[in-house]
Amino acid sequence: MSKKLKIGIIGAGRIGKLHANNLVNRVPDAELVAVSDVYAPAAKELAEKLNIPKWYDDYRRILEDRDIDAVFICSSTDTHSPISIEAARAGKHIFCEKPIDHDLDKIKVVLDEVERAGVKYQVGFNRRFDRNFKHVHEVVQNGGIGDVQIVKVTSRDPEAPPLSYVKVSGGIFVDMTIHDFDMVRYLSGSEVTEVSAVGACLVNPEIGEAGDVDTCIITLRFANGALGVIDNSRQAVYGYDQRIEVFGSKGCITADNETPNNTTLYTADGVTKETPLWFFLERYNDAFIAEENAFVDACLNDRPTAVGAFDGLQPVRIAIAAKESCEKGGVPVKVAR
Amino acid sequence: MSKKLKIGIIGAGRIGKLHANNLVNRVPDAELVAVSDVYAPAAKELAEKLNIPKWYDDYRRILEDRDIDAVFICSSTDTHSPISIEAARAGKHIFCEKPIDHDLDKIKVVLDEVERAGVKYQVGFNRRFDRNFKHVHEVVQNGGIGDVQIVKVTSRDPEAPPLSYVKVSGGIFVDMTIHDFDMVRYLSGSEVTEVSAVGACLVNPEIGEAGDVDTCIITLRFANGALGVIDNSRQAVYGYDQRIEVFGSKGCITADNETPNNTTLYTADGVTKETPLWFFLERYNDAFIAEENAFVDACLNDRPTAVGAFDGLQPVRIAIAAKESCEKGGVPVKVAR
Amino acid sequence: MSKKLKIGIIGAGRIGKLHANNLVNRVPDAELVAVSDVYAPAAKELAEKLNIPKWYDDYRRILEDRDIDAVFICSSTDTHSPISIEAARAGKHIFCEKPIDHDLDKIKVVLDEVERAGVKYQVGFNRRFDRNFKHVHEVVQNGGIGDVQIVKVTSRDPEAPPLSYVKVSGGIFVDMTIHDFDMVRYLSGSEVTEVSAVGACLVNPEIGEAGDVDTCIITLRFANGALGVIDNSRQAVYGYDQRIEVFGSKGCITADNETPNNTTLYTADGVTKETPLWFFLERYNDAFIAEENAFVDACLNDRPTAVGAFDGLQPVRIAIAAKESCEKGGVPVKVAR
Amino acid sequence: MSKKLKIGIIGAGRIGKLHANNLVNRVPDAELVAVSDVYAPAAKELAEKLNIPKWYDDYRRILEDRDIDAVFICSSTDTHSPISIEAARAGKHIFCEKPIDHDLDKIKVVLDEVERAGVKYQVGFNRRFDRNFKHVHEVVQNGGIGDVQIVKVTSRDPEAPPLSYVKVSGGIFVDMTIHDFDMVRYLSGSEVTEVSAVGACLVNPEIGEAGDVDTCIITLRFANGALGVIDNSRQAVYGYDQRIEVFGSKGCITADNETPNNTTLYTADGVTKETPLWFFLERYNDAFIAEENAFVDACLNDRPTAVGAFDGLQPVRIAIAAKESCEKGGVPVKVAR
Repeated sequence: MSKKLKIGIIGAGRIGKLHANNLVNRVPDAELVAVSDVYAPAAKELAEKLNIPKWYDDYRRILEDRDIDAVFICSSTDTHSPISIEAARAGKHIFCEKPIDHDLDKIKVVLDEVERAGVKYQVGFNRRFDRNFKHVHEVVQNGGIGDVQIVKVTSRDPEAPPLSYVKVSGGIFVDMTIHDFDMVRYLSGSEVTEVSAVGACLVNPEIGEAGDVDTCIITLRFANGALGVIDNSRQAVYGYDQRIEVFGSKGCITADNETPNNTTLYTADGVTKETPLWFFLERYNDAFIAEENAFVDACLNDRPTAVGAFDGLQPVRIAIAAKESCEKGGVPVKVAR
Repeated sequence: MSKKLKIGIIGAGRIGKLHANNLVNRVPDAELVAVSDVYAPAAKELAEKLNIPKWYDDYRRILEDRDIDAVFICSSTDTHSPISIEAARAGKHIFCEKPIDHDLDKIKVVLDEVERAGVKYQVGFNRRFDRNFKHVHEVVQNGGIGDVQIVKVTSRDPEAPPLSYVKVSGGIFVDMTIHDFDMVRYLSGSEVTEVSAVGACLVNPEIGEAGDVDTCIITLRFANGALGVIDNSRQAVYGYDQRIEVFGSKGCITADNETPNNTTLYTADGVTKETPLWFFLERYNDAFIAEENAFVDACLNDRPTAVGAFDGLQPVRIAIAAKESCEKGGVPVKVAR
Repeated sequence: MSKKLKIGIIGAGRIGKLHANNLVNRVPDAELVAVSDVYAPAAKELAEKLNIPKWYDDYRRILEDRDIDAVFICSSTDTHSPISIEAARAGKHIFCEKPIDHDLDKIKVVLDEVERAGVKYQVGFNRRFDRNFKHVHEVVQNGGIGDVQIVKVTSRDPEAPPLSYVKVSGGIFVDMTIHDFDMVRYLSGSEVTEVSAVGACLVNPEIGEAGDVDTCIITLRFANGALGVIDNSRQAVYGYDQRIEVFGSKGCITADNETPNNTTLYTADGVTKETPLWFFLERYNDAFIAEENAFVDACLNDRPTAVGAFDGLQPVRIAIAAKESCEKGGVPVKVAR
Repeated sequence: MSKKLKIGIIGAGRIGKLHANNLVNRVPDAELVAVSDVYAPAAKELAEKLNIPKWYDDYRRILEDRDIDAVFICSSTDTHSPISIEAARAGKHIFCEKPIDHDLDKIKVVLDEVERAGVKYQVGFNRRFDRNFKHVHEVVQNGGIGDVQIVKVTSRDPEAPPLSYVKVSGGIFVDMTIHDFDMVRYLSGSEVTEVSAVGACLVNPEIGEAGDVDTCIITLRFANGALGVIDNSRQAVYGYDQRIEVFGSKGCITADNETPNNTTLYTADGVTKETPLWFFLERYNDAFIAEENAFVDACLNDRPTAVGAFDGLQPVRIAIAAKESCEKGGVPVKVAR
């Protein structure tokens, strides 16, 4: 039998459970050996359900465990960067949920520590592993549409998060659009140099009262001269709307939503197809599995990760610029690199 | 100004009106100069509405008119073959609505007379001029799918005709499927050699009591070895369902229904597109215009018509065989050529 | 016979010929009685081809003709507003090609004169009559998607115009995007209050040297709070890309491109459908006919025109603001009303 | 932890490996404890690869094992019925690959023994678990299209099997169409009472020399009065073509092919989408997993299996009738029940 990657999961919340489940059932080369959560019962419950040998209320126990090769950091956002640093120093490969941090300086420290330690680092931008978006990326990379000129992302959630979450989320750009900022970098193969954003509160006025917007359009300039645009809404009543389009000198490629099935029903009332898969757990289920397998493969076979630490830094930079632009009414803001 | 084709229309019923309207408004090289109908007021009314100079209750007045180059035979089915013969003898080019006759011998006389007179003859198989079916035909002819192996036609009306009509229609195979028999010849580029048909009365039991079926599946063999299948229903509640598919050694090509518009509506209830255009007047409107222009062009420029007299004979042969097969419970019946 | 609207066409260039042809062949209630062009042979040629009784080199002859009810102003852009004013004073109903003028003050004079004269005025925003866009408009108006939140227009030409044209066009926003500015007003049912535009020269560097851009993204704010975005390119190699999307509180509706036919070809190389219709003459052919019929109907039956003089003013205002924004690197610019 | 179903697999060929892999990795409630194959090295290899505790060259060792709850019969077709009988007598639940046998009498003995033993029996008609076909089935069952009138199945393999296989396959109707015969029963909710089949050898003349056809169209009558049609080809060069359509008194529902991704590429050459997934391993991967989970669930929770022994008998009856019809040139043949 081939060697398996021994993994500890830090954080047994929604996303931690998701990764744990997949690592146990869908990632053949992974062996999930420990889980920790500041709330001990959550760690215990997950461990028992999935037959994970060890569980802790302190992630340091995982970092100290010489038997563990890699960690999945699924704890609260504010802990991502400090735990990343500690894990790197402990010599663990790191899979870190997005965003690494809201503070650019802290992310840079993570980058430095990861580089120094020589460990693998992968950020949880799972959408890159969606079969459709991946194919678009490959076609673009292979010149299938010539030089990229316009990149478009439609990204709308099926329902707004609870107001309590909105208040601590850091705002729509850091919380939601950050995935799209990663996507435009992935699709264009170029860095964003400037961003302007306009926003509105059209879904729920309380979101506006909390100082955030729930609907926005973000225009981007790329280093290679291309332009881009993202539109977001916190609430698309027909389900998770996730579509992309890349337009270039030789053509255009689009990727559509995924649906529960591809049937078409014809009745006197109309011709009906299924609405998009409801939310990210449904839509990106296979993408999560693919990103986990890719990370395990990168660790076991010493290959670069598909989404490195720098890929975790840059979308935060763009998000911060977008937020600034939006607050200033849409004036363009430069993005450093 | 270029010469126009001077035309007289025989029959001012539904289909006669349709052609008259198009000849006046949509066929630039046609000049509609006369209309006749056994019911004189119908001829008069149409003439006045469209500014047609002459109207009669006797089609012979049109045949005698030396000024007239061509006739459109839009009278009742039983008169198609005798008027065709008279018109040929009068030296008029002939556009004849389908079917030429239900009696094969009478059709053959028409063929002979037309050949003797050297006039143009076009049968009203308008679907050949539908933009989608025409393109399929061309791709097949150009080898785009290799050797034809399977031809499929879905052809369903939106609602059953009145029972009074069903009783004199000659039955579903002669009345409705005849268009599909023409279509499979057009698409396959080969003659039907054998047919077997099964039918059922699932839409309206009175149709069954009248000795007809309202739902049927017809299997075909072609001279080139290919197989074919047609399915018909007298009632598709979502509208006129007209789709085709040709499968071959190098690929497959399909043509879909036409709709009032191509929009897609996403709501919490589903993703909805438009139902097909309701019936043949809507769906084949442009096809009627195209067939009229093609006939006028063939006459003015002495080119073969796109759908000749033999093309009017063969589908009737297939329909008669299909009827026999259906009555015998589906046994295969040969089709002469 | 019903009364027909007697029409004179001013300008026998590309768009003048298009309207003349349609008025003669596709607008039953129109009677095209005169054509003028500063280049007399063009007027003569068109008159002879279409059997138009009178032709002139001076449009004033048309305005003086008491027999003429309405004019189509199809002359060069700089003459649109002065001829509009003269025609209004002459009591003629007016169909005027877009844009009325590049100068807002001149357009306002047209509005005043038209109001004073009590004549009909319709601006040539033909896309409103496209079957798809019209249906989207109706669904939105009828509340089918709830409150409008995001309006998206993709509008890309198949090839850049000649450089000589680009230089006198007034720039992409006035020349090309102006149709899209009309479209977003039509779709949103609300006025644009602010616009920001970023542009790039990615298709042809000579366009940039001429001071224009060939690729751009324009973000819009509407009076009702909604946001909008338009993306343009002067060159989509796969043909005229004209799609729209309106997203709202209860759903989303999209309209797709039109194609020569709806067939699908399956081969070992892929599953292929047709590219969009090549350019506006193909795509909007039926829309041109519909706008002409609508104008004739408005004149004959004393109904408001579908696209009035104010609808000709507002898109110019937006275009001027977009140009300013683009020149300032994307800062938002207010649009007056 | 919940109880798991202890399973032994009989036969370590292609389909045995497929089930083994899924049982280990994708069926949480299954525990694969033994594998047998007459060719011992095959059993050993599979056991080692998947950590299956026991492997044998004699399936009787599995039947004797009191620890084992259920068997998957994946051995050669001629052994399906005898092993089914032995397994039933041994009190094991049985998952049996299709067809149970080519001999109706032998299948009936299996039915009897299964009933007597009171064990679960599921036949490997995996397509019923395809997400699209399953949804169609449910919509039909729930009356979504009213009374079923026409059932259509398009089923084409991407490439013909080796001639050596064709010769022992029992012919296309027993080998390939049998899945479609199951599908029409599943979709219509009714039994086939009569079948007529026409066939041709258009793909590979050697198939004809071996006494089989490679292209065929089968017409069906159902007990509820509906009609059906299946078209088969051994070679669709664009991939596995698996589509269905059910038409009824209130509408129609279709299910389309599955593709590797849903992107659309627009270039000057056309608008291209992906070809269907290549063959059954790709297309029905999730369906295999679903049928295995369903079987395990039926055994553990004492529920009826989704595809019982009678469902294994009936398609063989139809296949035998179809073969007879085809050999007689398409005459209809009754199907007993």
